[in-house]
Amino acid sequence: MSFNFGKNIRVQIFGESHGEAIGVVVDGLPAGMLLDTAALHAFLAKRRPGGVLSTGRKETDLPEFLSGLYGGVLTGSPICAVIKNTDVKSADYEALKNTPRPGHADYPATLRFGGDADMRGGGPFSGRMTAPLCVAGGICLQLLAEKGVTVTSKVQEIAGKSDPAEMEAAVKAAAAEGDSVGGIVECRAKGLAPGMGGHMFDGVENRIATAIFGVPGVRGIEFGDGFEAARMTGSQHNDPYILKDGCVVTETNHCGGVLGGMTMGNDLVFRVALKPTPSISKAQRTVNLETMKETEISISGRHDPCIVWRAAPAIEAAAAIVLLDIILDGRTTWK
Amino acid sequence: MSFNFGKNIRVQIFGESHGEAIGVVVDGLPAGMLLDTAALHAFLAKRRPGGVLSTGRKETDLPEFLSGLYGGVLTGSPICAVIKNTDVKSADYEALKNTPRPGHADYPATLRFGGDADMRGGGPFSGRMTAPLCVAGGICLQLLAEKGVTVTSKVQEIAGKSDPAEMEAAVKAAAAEGDSVGGIVECRAKGLAPGMGGHMFDGVENRIATAIFGVPGVRGIEFGDGFEAARMTGSQHNDPYILKDGCVVTETNHCGGVLGGMTMGNDLVFRVALKPTPSISKAQRTVNLETMKETEISISGRHDPCIVWRAAPAIEAAAAIVLLDIILDGRTTWK
Amino acid sequence: MSFNFGKNIRVQIFGESHGEAIGVVVDGLPAGMLLDTAALHAFLAKRRPGGVLSTGRKETDLPEFLSGLYGGVLTGSPICAVIKNTDVKSADYEALKNTPRPGHADYPATLRFGGDADMRGGGPFSGRMTAPLCVAGGICLQLLAEKGVTVTSKVQEIAGKSDPAEMEAAVKAAAAEGDSVGGIVECRAKGLAPGMGGHMFDGVENRIATAIFGVPGVRGIEFGDGFEAARMTGSQHNDPYILKDGCVVTETNHCGGVLGGMTMGNDLVFRVALKPTPSISKAQRTVNLETMKETEISISGRHDPCIVWRAAPAIEAAAAIVLLDIILDGRTTWK
Amino acid sequence: MSFNFGKNIRVQIFGESHGEAIGVVVDGLPAGMLLDTAALHAFLAKRRPGGVLSTGRKETDLPEFLSGLYGGVLTGSPICAVIKNTDVKSADYEALKNTPRPGHADYPATLRFGGDADMRGGGPFSGRMTAPLCVAGGICLQLLAEKGVTVTSKVQEIAGKSDPAEMEAAVKAAAAEGDSVGGIVECRAKGLAPGMGGHMFDGVENRIATAIFGVPGVRGIEFGDGFEAARMTGSQHNDPYILKDGCVVTETNHCGGVLGGMTMGNDLVFRVALKPTPSISKAQRTVNLETMKETEISISGRHDPCIVWRAAPAIEAAAAIVLLDIILDGRTTWK
Repeated sequence: MSFNFGKNIRVQIFGESHGEAIGVVVDGLPAGMLLDTAALHAFLAKRRPGGVLSTGRKETDLPEFLSGLYGGVLTGSPICAVIKNTDVKSADYEALKNTPRPGHADYPATLRFGGDADMRGGGPFSGRMTAPLCVAGGICLQLLAEKGVTVTSKVQEIAGKSDPAEMEAAVKAAAAEGDSVGGIVECRAKGLAPGMGGHMFDGVENRIATAIFGVPGVRGIEFGDGFEAARMTGSQHNDPYILKDGCVVTETNHCGGVLGGMTMGNDLVFRVALKPTPSISKAQRTVNLETMKETEISISGRHDPCIVWRAAPAIEAAAAIVLLDIILDGRTTWK
Repeated sequence: MSFNFGKNIRVQIFGESHGEAIGVVVDGLPAGMLLDTAALHAFLAKRRPGGVLSTGRKETDLPEFLSGLYGGVLTGSPICAVIKNTDVKSADYEALKNTPRPGHADYPATLRFGGDADMRGGGPFSGRMTAPLCVAGGICLQLLAEKGVTVTSKVQEIAGKSDPAEMEAAVKAAAAEGDSVGGIVECRAKGLAPGMGGHMFDGVENRIATAIFGVPGVRGIEFGDGFEAARMTGSQHNDPYILKDGCVVTETNHCGGVLGGMTMGNDLVFRVALKPTPSISKAQRTVNLETMKETEISISGRHDPCIVWRAAPAIEAAAAIVLLDIILDGRTTWK
Repeated sequence: MSFNFGKNIRVQIFGESHGEAIGVVVDGLPAGMLLDTAALHAFLAKRRPGGVLSTGRKETDLPEFLSGLYGGVLTGSPICAVIKNTDVKSADYEALKNTPRPGHADYPATLRFGGDADMRGGGPFSGRMTAPLCVAGGICLQLLAEKGVTVTSKVQEIAGKSDPAEMEAAVKAAAAEGDSVGGIVECRAKGLAPGMGGHMFDGVENRIATAIFGVPGVRGIEFGDGFEAARMTGSQHNDPYILKDGCVVTETNHCGGVLGGMTMGNDLVFRVALKPTPSISKAQRTVNLETMKETEISISGRHDPCIVWRAAPAIEAAAAIVLLDIILDGRTTWK
Repeated sequence: MSFNFGKNIRVQIFGESHGEAIGVVVDGLPAGMLLDTAALHAFLAKRRPGGVLSTGRKETDLPEFLSGLYGGVLTGSPICAVIKNTDVKSADYEALKNTPRPGHADYPATLRFGGDADMRGGGPFSGRMTAPLCVAGGICLQLLAEKGVTVTSKVQEIAGKSDPAEMEAAVKAAAAEGDSVGGIVECRAKGLAPGMGGHMFDGVENRIATAIFGVPGVRGIEFGDGFEAARMTGSQHNDPYILKDGCVVTETNHCGGVLGGMTMGNDLVFRVALKPTPSISKAQRTVNLETMKETEISISGRHDPCIVWRAAPAIEAAAAIVLLDIILDGRTTWK
């Protein structure tokens, strides 16, 4: 499988950046919730292109629902949401057809699909594929909210800067040089019951990682103290159990809310590393696959110098889908 | 699912640390290879307890094969390998039954399985579960080798130190204080053909991450430059294409051998963060679940002050299984 | 999962009979084939309503492709095909809302989805859901044809009659009485290589049966001699091996082309039992779920007195998808 | 995948008829039930060879549990059960190595696994593989019983006879001629709540059929009136809804307890066609694959002239696993 994931909920994404449309089918959502379309649109707006520091492509990217809703209520059969591709300028890409862009999927995709992949605008590897992911995730966020679970994220770092003003300056500076920057997003889920998740390969981390690496540009993921935990001692990293209002809780949250693949009842916290946007106007070395000669390219299309802000809602969306999937897991006791 | 993963090859692990046995069933392995048992044993020896700096538990941990081999050759039906649990001292753990150990799965497992999980020695969450993973992975390594693919790893960092002598000193120092340390393992696969893997949720990274988070103690994973990529510019991070001996290759390997979820033909490189061993003899705060009073515990069993060296072969094993699974993926072109 | 199946190819169906649209996403199709749209339309015409003996609903049911094709060629990323619901008369069904129709999914669906399923026109349980299945199957048929595999079907029996004229007469007679009839479809695949398929739960039969029971109205499936085999002796039923043109073949085909879950190289043959259309205008007893009183209903919408002819292409489609999926299975030998 | 199936519960079978052992891993069973070993053994005895009319092979076939039980109670981690192969006479089969037995998997398995499958005694295709299936199913039967669900079966027909005495006579007559006979098993589950199961490809029928075709020798399956439904009218086949003790029930059960893939709350009923045992001592034509000449074989090993009685518990087992899996499905409403 490739564009789908999930166990109880199955998310199937489709589309190519410059094709007719992109979209998603979500199978397995429980019936009965009235979808708040305005709230969904507000969520989707967070990833939409068009900001000052963002790609020039203007699309409203509002999904049209073809199934799974009746009177605005989830029916229990699959949701299909379609987003038309309206503001497409493929000419920008035609010139690049034989010169794979460094840092892009162009070259391995050419090998994998024998030259038949529709790679215009990044094709099925485009960051645009996060729009349907956000539709699916936005619905899941509403379902989670009804059970008291929230998922939020923050951009923790861009170009190595953690101060917002410095982040913005770094992005502008990179853009001015025809370059790009990356960053780190932290995602946090609150309100999860303890004792959910699973053993070994079905743990919260495994399932979230599977979804998160589906977001283009992700290069790493860490839970709780993550890579920093590798530099701590056990006595520093272990979270002591204490009593609080008569309940067992941990005093700290170094584990990021998950131990042994199972939720601890405190905040689930993970961080995601996003690489700098591969599309840059700065000259780059590549090979012309037709002439088999080395050459240079400068990518002139509409590209974000930094995709980190736009990736954040996609990361929330992926997490929301997985967490709902985990909540829907079958029972583990028989008493 | 919990103790199983894989698409073309299905790895199903079973067992509990202090039960009868642990083991693995591997379904979907191709037929025809003569298994090199000595080489497999040598690989398994890498994760076996008993080293100077390692847990006192002595087990040969040699697998007995119940199926899937005939005259030493893979038959194409599932391999079942069993490792008996022989040197078990559950008494060490009995005392801890009502006092969940910080940093361990004890507490969430109690909630999840209603008190019926066999948590002696960490039960199904024990690092011991990596032994059957290594059996499965060790077989896959041999199959990969027949196709020219190797998977190796190195301990890159322990307790923040990258010099072997300093690592060892740090582990001894932690052990002397009844404490523990973590570290980072880097894994590298050579010889992979370009253009393998898959789209979005079926990429090399998604599939490897799913498996790697099944290794107890893993807190993070990053590919190529990983989190460091978040601090680079596009022009620094993109790998230029060049010609080498008439072939298209990248000049650098910042991407870690994988772009858009697909292999690039160069080395696949990823790093894994392992937390400090949670079992420490230093006093830790916890709650007695029976009396519901705060208390302290000091864990006296046989525990590694550092599991990083022993985790390394498990990481290789997980990677080998996934890479073989990827090689076995169905065709993506029809010409 | 519910509306999806498949291992290498994943078919995800969506839609409700009287919603906006129905459709399908097919993930995992190999790249490179030019889709013959006219041939696909011709295949879809076989299941389209509107025949003399068929439901009055008139829809062209032509799919619009949103993704996965570029210049008419399969790109290797998911195909999404949408069929709009245009000729919808929900009023017919509104009256039936509280009186579950015997033989329909109305009653269990009400329980399962808490009254929120969109059951107009049968909702997601409608025979109309076979239209997107036929789109997916029609594409797979073309891919199979390129490898020399054909899948055809014939209506073997309707209302117990095997003569076409008698079948037609039986359908007309049932329709005249406001009743309906069922029948049996035989499906046959030619050109399959021997030695494909899988062990135990992954055999050709298991995988085909999973798909076929997704066609509404299916009540049974049998391979080769099927239920008749239960009345034969081993010496009658076993297919002797003989040499033909220097090749090993079976003299007979009692097994229906599949032994031990694997193809034999001869024709794959299976039969499917379809129940009589549950929607009949004859009065039927039911219970009004609002008043909780017994009552009678007479179903007045547009309904086929016999769905068998229209089910036949859906059965071909399901078989084609599974057979392509089987052909795409990973290798089973390593030499 | 091949030797495994299931969604919430995953059953992974392993072993070959004349290898070291056969067995099963069952992952996903809920924790907390005390396993009744005596009851499990009694259930397993039903399929054990050794009856008057049955194969001469004598094995106790009692499983040894390696994991998943602690103090006899299910722990929530995978059960592994192993059955040693003790009474093996491979010499019987060695002679047949190059002459594929008609009606057996020998020939396609040779093609599929390049001659490396361990086909002694039928290898992984042997009816013996139903022993571990019965272990898994026997445990599930006990879990189901705790929730008021029972699964039973009866041999409805052997050699076309429905009278037990006539069945026995037919088997003896066939055996006397070195031949074999088949039959039909009816399976029935009582106590299922209505509204369970799923849409389209995830219906009760799809999931049961997948498991049942894993039992060697199965040639067909039908639910409710099955193939007979194809000869009925809608007014005959539809089950009217009535009130009984204030509850909505159906007056009849032509549907076999399942409509639209969902349970109806009445008895789930399905029938399975089993072919005559392929191993017969009567001379059969085959081809010597070494000499590539036509020849004859007479199979002299220990073989049942009729496997129907022994298949019955395997069918119950498969059904029990699937029904428990269905009960464990995630919720479908959100209210």
